[in-house]
Amino acid sequence: MKKETAILLIHCPDKKGIIHAVTDFLYENNGNVVYLDQHTDHSHSEFFMRIEWEIEDFQIGREKIGEYFNTLIARKFSMMWSLHFSDQKKRVAVFVTKLSHCLYDILYRCHSREWDVEIPLIISNHQTLKPIAEQFDIPFYHIPITKATKAEQEAKQLKLLAEYKIDLVVLARYMQIVSDNFIKHYPQKIINIHHSFLPAFIGSKPYHAAFERGVKIIGATSHYVTADLDAGPIIEQGITHVTHKENVRDFIRKGKDNEKIVLSKAIAKDLEHKILVCRNRTVVFD
Amino acid sequence: MKKETAILLIHCPDKKGIIHAVTDFLYENNGNVVYLDQHTDHSHSEFFMRIEWEIEDFQIGREKIGEYFNTLIARKFSMMWSLHFSDQKKRVAVFVTKLSHCLYDILYRCHSREWDVEIPLIISNHQTLKPIAEQFDIPFYHIPITKATKAEQEAKQLKLLAEYKIDLVVLARYMQIVSDNFIKHYPQKIINIHHSFLPAFIGSKPYHAAFERGVKIIGATSHYVTADLDAGPIIEQGITHVTHKENVRDFIRKGKDNEKIVLSKAIAKDLEHKILVCRNRTVVFD
Amino acid sequence: MKKETAILLIHCPDKKGIIHAVTDFLYENNGNVVYLDQHTDHSHSEFFMRIEWEIEDFQIGREKIGEYFNTLIARKFSMMWSLHFSDQKKRVAVFVTKLSHCLYDILYRCHSREWDVEIPLIISNHQTLKPIAEQFDIPFYHIPITKATKAEQEAKQLKLLAEYKIDLVVLARYMQIVSDNFIKHYPQKIINIHHSFLPAFIGSKPYHAAFERGVKIIGATSHYVTADLDAGPIIEQGITHVTHKENVRDFIRKGKDNEKIVLSKAIAKDLEHKILVCRNRTVVFD
Amino acid sequence: MKKETAILLIHCPDKKGIIHAVTDFLYENNGNVVYLDQHTDHSHSEFFMRIEWEIEDFQIGREKIGEYFNTLIARKFSMMWSLHFSDQKKRVAVFVTKLSHCLYDILYRCHSREWDVEIPLIISNHQTLKPIAEQFDIPFYHIPITKATKAEQEAKQLKLLAEYKIDLVVLARYMQIVSDNFIKHYPQKIINIHHSFLPAFIGSKPYHAAFERGVKIIGATSHYVTADLDAGPIIEQGITHVTHKENVRDFIRKGKDNEKIVLSKAIAKDLEHKILVCRNRTVVFD
Repeated sequence: MKKETAILLIHCPDKKGIIHAVTDFLYENNGNVVYLDQHTDHSHSEFFMRIEWEIEDFQIGREKIGEYFNTLIARKFSMMWSLHFSDQKKRVAVFVTKLSHCLYDILYRCHSREWDVEIPLIISNHQTLKPIAEQFDIPFYHIPITKATKAEQEAKQLKLLAEYKIDLVVLARYMQIVSDNFIKHYPQKIINIHHSFLPAFIGSKPYHAAFERGVKIIGATSHYVTADLDAGPIIEQGITHVTHKENVRDFIRKGKDNEKIVLSKAIAKDLEHKILVCRNRTVVFD
Repeated sequence: MKKETAILLIHCPDKKGIIHAVTDFLYENNGNVVYLDQHTDHSHSEFFMRIEWEIEDFQIGREKIGEYFNTLIARKFSMMWSLHFSDQKKRVAVFVTKLSHCLYDILYRCHSREWDVEIPLIISNHQTLKPIAEQFDIPFYHIPITKATKAEQEAKQLKLLAEYKIDLVVLARYMQIVSDNFIKHYPQKIINIHHSFLPAFIGSKPYHAAFERGVKIIGATSHYVTADLDAGPIIEQGITHVTHKENVRDFIRKGKDNEKIVLSKAIAKDLEHKILVCRNRTVVFD
Repeated sequence: MKKETAILLIHCPDKKGIIHAVTDFLYENNGNVVYLDQHTDHSHSEFFMRIEWEIEDFQIGREKIGEYFNTLIARKFSMMWSLHFSDQKKRVAVFVTKLSHCLYDILYRCHSREWDVEIPLIISNHQTLKPIAEQFDIPFYHIPITKATKAEQEAKQLKLLAEYKIDLVVLARYMQIVSDNFIKHYPQKIINIHHSFLPAFIGSKPYHAAFERGVKIIGATSHYVTADLDAGPIIEQGITHVTHKENVRDFIRKGKDNEKIVLSKAIAKDLEHKILVCRNRTVVFD
Repeated sequence: MKKETAILLIHCPDKKGIIHAVTDFLYENNGNVVYLDQHTDHSHSEFFMRIEWEIEDFQIGREKIGEYFNTLIARKFSMMWSLHFSDQKKRVAVFVTKLSHCLYDILYRCHSREWDVEIPLIISNHQTLKPIAEQFDIPFYHIPITKATKAEQEAKQLKLLAEYKIDLVVLARYMQIVSDNFIKHYPQKIINIHHSFLPAFIGSKPYHAAFERGVKIIGATSHYVTADLDAGPIIEQGITHVTHKENVRDFIRKGKDNEKIVLSKAIAKDLEHKILVCRNRTVVFD
């Protein structure tokens, strides 16, 4: 049986003694560290850390850990930090349009308990995938979007996300550009899958563009969504080899396998609190 | 002992009966086919073929094959075609600047007879790699280039290539943009290695740009050089995974292994007459 | 709209004129060839071919093609051949135990019409995955197996397969060894996924064995089932990199993504009639 | 300019406070840590660490660091440890037979200063590669080996290795089995490249065996040499996809590119003191 753990994600200016201070804090309070990874960006003198420890015998009560850590350690090192507990399930909303490959891959991972997560709703601008939501007994909200209705429909989406207390939004081949306003409500909490090897082939129809360019490898990129289209911090990328024998239709078909794996890997890292973002780049711990 | 073979590379509008006609031509004249591959681009109705046969018992004399094929077959199908013989060694000029990884990889393959090819000269805009040319006993021409001298220095290069009867020019991390005039002399006969996953990161310092963008995979692309920078038909691409732990220096170091393999694979395909180009895309037979 | 096609899979001793004869047969009878690939195994002088053509305007009636081809071409070249039509859906039975990743991947591909196939039943030695069968409205047969009951339970399975007119059996992480008798009923019609890079780690618990050996890459292999355990002709293999940071549990989790993709790729090739088997090795056309 | 650093490699039973103690030791003595990575094998309760710091301002003299660390830290935690300095170049002997691809790849990396290493001699049981040694001005020792002469010839080899003060032996496609006695002189100091995906295809002619088995992926494995043939701790593995179109000769040719990269990656990790071995498995830090 896996024991309950606490997880600290830390980001601060690099200084001597940070690891020392953090491990000291846990050690002195009887925390059994089960995971420690850190990264120093020497060119910008920045430090990143993820540490996880069993809280059963930890001498600081769960609800006090944040306060103590902030007072005793974080301030001293000007840390940005976040604290998570392994028994808190994230609540994830999945946005889709018509393609089912990513959605099925996500739902399978929840259903099989590979991921310990809640998916309380699926939102789509089309009805196409409603039967899948029904297969998995998940509420499905059909919110069609046109240029004219975009603001109002996004408001509906945001209302739903708030009602359902959503922690993470996954755009699983959701073929709509999300507005800046929407993104502001979920900073670094929206993961998109783009079906190209970014920064190549930004925007729509990347497989068509890849085919036209005559590439020998196609890709997929999962990233946090920011105001700049397809320009947010990259979490994971994957590729598939293609040859002259394959046309756009083959690219699309083969690409799906890549997209779903790349998206699911990114979601998994987020669920495990293993991602930190800085200067539009990600630190993704193993 | 491998027997001498002839190779036909064919490109024409798709029609019923092409394979039939070509194999018939060989069959009727006692050609023993050892390789046949073809590709039909259905969207553009174009047909591509590579066929190779042993010429020992072929009833048409080696010097007459082209004429006969043209008269009896090619005209009927409006074919573009080229004829090659396995005992004709290509003569390759290698252009370099300061980095040795691709050069060594190429020279090793010649030296070890992995490739049956002649490298009669190396041309560079710097003296740095002269010792390697000496190691392998290959004439080394130092032709420095500035904006002011470019036209005149390229004329010197072209004169050398003509004197040495060069069939193929390889830009093995040659850090100069080759002029349109130069390219016109060697259409689809100049292979470049670009140290990015094209079309991402065209131009100089692609690893720096890749690092800035925060990609998780870096790439290399070998392509025929055309008048548009880094936009020629792609022959081969390869990739290397990177993480947040790696900086630009690591990208450069790791990228070298990828670059040399990707470039050498492209050269090998060209040497084996396995590449056809159409609409800025390549057909690369296995 | 894709037109109906016929597909010939051919295997025979290599001789001059085979391609000629086959393409001639189609050409003379007004067959529009949309796919042609062939392979010659020069060391064993064996020839393999897959050819596909539109039958709409073909001058030989669909039900007569086999007879004509056999009489006019196949006998002359001592061909083994099979004829298929693109509008004949294969009927596939999926065997599972407790793990759902391969099953979901297969069902998604049918459900989304990526594959044009029928899955009329799922058979399992456990009840675990019954809810998934129900999700997809597919009859689920629970046939538990012990050493004592194996013969009798396999007889039940075979009866079901016959009743449902099954063309292909897929062992989607079915954790039972299938008997020789069972295999004899479906020669080269049973595809298994083994969760190792065969021939390494044959048998049970390959991830445990891989971990013990300290490998840096784990694999998965899909193959036709033969009487020798995990020794049948390999169709497709895939790999995943691992590091010292990962334990057996991680291998199992990461391996699933690889397994499902490798199995589905193999099934797809079989459904497209692109596999020929000879000397326990496969020719898998693109 | 890179500053001189010291590197500690540590292996001990896992306990609370190890990282704390080690970083404290460096911190208190003014060591600027530039690299820290650690790994805990929870199933065996073992801890591994690599830490690197600039020694310019370190308060303990270089020649005293080992003693102080042992007394103050290592004993307390029952550590096995080793101390290295970035300005100490390793001295590497390369053993070859007739194939040059790995040798060239190694020599290029030294020559181009990608590696900061000395290669004072090359040893071979054949004369074939002597010209390459001459190209690079490295003493070449031809020591032919037969069953009858093996013991005596290995004694000569060992004498040379001692004379040249060799730290690391690289078997770069050296087609001889090294005796247990030889191995005992260089425990975890002999790196071999085996041209298969171990543990598949142990022993000689692995590409032939791979071809016979009909695999779709071939591999290469670099490992430390132990008394059991091809069974030592694996450092790095790489793969190459193959198809039915390729015969043994193609496997051999394609495999070379994989072998040389896999071997060079393993050597690089060893040179950087990034490998720890335990239970016949390696911890290879990034």
